[in-house]
Amino acid sequence: MAPRLDTITFLSDYGTGDEFVGVVHSVIRSIAPHVAVIDLTHEIPPYDIRAGSLTLGRAAQYLCPGVVLAIVDPGVGTERRGVAIEVGDGQSYLVGPDNGLLASAVAMSGGATAVVELTNTELQLAAPGATFAGRDVFAPAAAHLCNGVALTELGDVIDPLLLRPGLMPLPREVDGTIVAEVLWVDHFGNCQLNVDPDEVDHLGDRVQLRWGDDVRTAERGATYQGIAVGQVGLVIDSYGMLSVCLGKRSAADELSMGVGTEVTLAPPGDSDVIPTGAAQSVTLTPRSTT
Amino acid sequence: MAPRLDTITFLSDYGTGDEFVGVVHSVIRSIAPHVAVIDLTHEIPPYDIRAGSLTLGRAAQYLCPGVVLAIVDPGVGTERRGVAIEVGDGQSYLVGPDNGLLASAVAMSGGATAVVELTNTELQLAAPGATFAGRDVFAPAAAHLCNGVALTELGDVIDPLLLRPGLMPLPREVDGTIVAEVLWVDHFGNCQLNVDPDEVDHLGDRVQLRWGDDVRTAERGATYQGIAVGQVGLVIDSYGMLSVCLGKRSAADELSMGVGTEVTLAPPGDSDVIPTGAAQSVTLTPRSTT
Amino acid sequence: MAPRLDTITFLSDYGTGDEFVGVVHSVIRSIAPHVAVIDLTHEIPPYDIRAGSLTLGRAAQYLCPGVVLAIVDPGVGTERRGVAIEVGDGQSYLVGPDNGLLASAVAMSGGATAVVELTNTELQLAAPGATFAGRDVFAPAAAHLCNGVALTELGDVIDPLLLRPGLMPLPREVDGTIVAEVLWVDHFGNCQLNVDPDEVDHLGDRVQLRWGDDVRTAERGATYQGIAVGQVGLVIDSYGMLSVCLGKRSAADELSMGVGTEVTLAPPGDSDVIPTGAAQSVTLTPRSTT
Repeated sequence: MAPRLDTITFLSDYGTGDEFVGVVHSVIRSIAPHVAVIDLTHEIPPYDIRAGSLTLGRAAQYLCPGVVLAIVDPGVGTERRGVAIEVGDGQSYLVGPDNGLLASAVAMSGGATAVVELTNTELQLAAPGATFAGRDVFAPAAAHLCNGVALTELGDVIDPLLLRPGLMPLPREVDGTIVAEVLWVDHFGNCQLNVDPDEVDHLGDRVQLRWGDDVRTAERGATYQGIAVGQVGLVIDSYGMLSVCLGKRSAADELSMGVGTEVTLAPPGDSDVIPTGAAQSVTLTPRSTT
Repeated sequence: MAPRLDTITFLSDYGTGDEFVGVVHSVIRSIAPHVAVIDLTHEIPPYDIRAGSLTLGRAAQYLCPGVVLAIVDPGVGTERRGVAIEVGDGQSYLVGPDNGLLASAVAMSGGATAVVELTNTELQLAAPGATFAGRDVFAPAAAHLCNGVALTELGDVIDPLLLRPGLMPLPREVDGTIVAEVLWVDHFGNCQLNVDPDEVDHLGDRVQLRWGDDVRTAERGATYQGIAVGQVGLVIDSYGMLSVCLGKRSAADELSMGVGTEVTLAPPGDSDVIPTGAAQSVTLTPRSTT
Repeated sequence: MAPRLDTITFLSDYGTGDEFVGVVHSVIRSIAPHVAVIDLTHEIPPYDIRAGSLTLGRAAQYLCPGVVLAIVDPGVGTERRGVAIEVGDGQSYLVGPDNGLLASAVAMSGGATAVVELTNTELQLAAPGATFAGRDVFAPAAAHLCNGVALTELGDVIDPLLLRPGLMPLPREVDGTIVAEVLWVDHFGNCQLNVDPDEVDHLGDRVQLRWGDDVRTAERGATYQGIAVGQVGLVIDSYGMLSVCLGKRSAADELSMGVGTEVTLAPPGDSDVIPTGAAQSVTLTPRSTT
């Protein structure tokens, strides 16, 4: 019998307006009453696998050992597999659909050491209609793992190499500039880029940002608070990534950036590569701080 | 002494923006520290007893034994009764206002075996002003029940037949069609009807839906995912009821359906009973898929 | 070794859309697995120290003994201090930024008996960039206190008199009227004023309310429900303060009141002090019920 685990960390796109999250908690407690369930968030935009995967990846290194139960599942009820993944030779498990959602957290945890497809319906609930997979398949699997049920009892073993990979956009280098993308806008409007701080150190303390028709110069800063009001900042965020911020205001709202916005980072005053049209824009000129 | 219970499932219309939900958790923990509280949802629309009752009814069969604490209480502070209801001869209890909110969950649990009105103020908190009944009356009652306090210590016994019934709209059959109603719109925009799948089996694999000035033909499907993009589906949802859905999009948003929308289900191509005005509508014609 | 505490009550302005709240729960559970975390609310408006402080003050008398972890922290990463405050000679602790947020709860708990600045980085997590103080500093401090770690191990002792005070607007008396302010609008739209019921008892059962260009006469009532539909009520709310309400509707929405709205309470028919312009307004006349 494997050691019992006592924490399930739960992420989904269920929202909290319906009873879905509570029902999953209740199913877990019915099977494994000793387990504490930590809600990571349930406000992943519906069906947004990438947003769920990025959230799990950010949180992964801070999670207690136990089971991660993650459900963003546009393919529920089709041929997509439900899986349970062992990491760290049994220190933790991840349970959810095999659609890339779990990939970043698996990678952050050192990679999969064993995988099963959740085919054993005896360890699932019977569904009266369309499967509510969180309730009927995934929550029971997570709870049984916490009870010490062996991974291989949950279904058929599959090769970890067959797991669907996650896709992460990488920044590109173009003519000495870095073409990046906003990965995440947090609650305070800070815009995390897919850029390691090291990659822009050669640009110095001031970095020109270009996105859409806008051009602004950002100050590198150590903290959000160190950025003056109205000034655009480029800060190493609490996960160690570069983030566009604005002194105590929402960068996303006021700079019109969102998830997926392409942002080019260039040396300050790098006017040669500003598109001609944009450089002549009357709205742009007074906003430029270079 | 009754056996101790260790789970309280909590539903309300309190929202999560104020401290109400947290204060109720804290009051429970002060009285019965061994209890785990599961939040079913707190986003029932303010004062919407029917929405709360339907949510409890859907969840009921999946809840752990213990106490259900449910509060949607437009009559707080008036002559409406607060009650504690025993079901299954003491296996579980439901606590809340006697306004129909608890009716569906009581019925799903096999009916009330005993009821008291919460009149014993010694097992309540003193309120400094208007009663915050969740904090002052209902949470203490739920917690004391978990501690093994007898139901009859909470107040005066009343006849279960005097409990306010819940009202559930039933579908009507009119000229071979079924006139149904949207009971619930879930987070993904699926629209649950008050119709058992059996009731429409005679209509076949394609069913004409009429609501407002709209007419669409829906495909019966086994899963949400089996419905093609842009196609209207009629699926047996995860609670075993018929639900109107749209391939990976929100049926509620795109078809302009909401809770209470009347939807008529008819055989496909049942043009004879389309209202004349609607049949001539230019907006309607291109949207019809029959 | 101090006695172990087993409850942390957690309030923040983190929202629930990101993983912040869940990560804080996970850090606490990693350090002190025996602790239950109660979420008071995480929807304090971003950076709104006053709203957070008022919420804590309202809840304080209902909280279990343990640790209050409160984070509304516009100055994170700057010279503002993080603190842990002992109240009741060790019965409870409060942990958070020293910016006035904790002041009302400390006062409600009888005042600080000891304070440390959280300077001991050995009992904190290493941050990869800007400090996420909830995760890296405050959650570990709260968890270690629950484990029985002495307050003084968390950092340097400071004088409780040096804590930043909270600022609470007091009502003013002007020409026999009381000039008050809306402190809080709850989920149901009730508008709590910074006025004790005693302060208006001399005005009788009907009180004239004036705000902006509006004048309405409110009925004093014992419960929200006792107020007729469409009638403005002045009720002693569940915290013992005066609150403007409207029969089963949102006073905030329909009367256009919000946090910070200045409201003058006067005797009914106190027309002498109605501004001339307002008294002549055609919109005002039919709305006045005096």
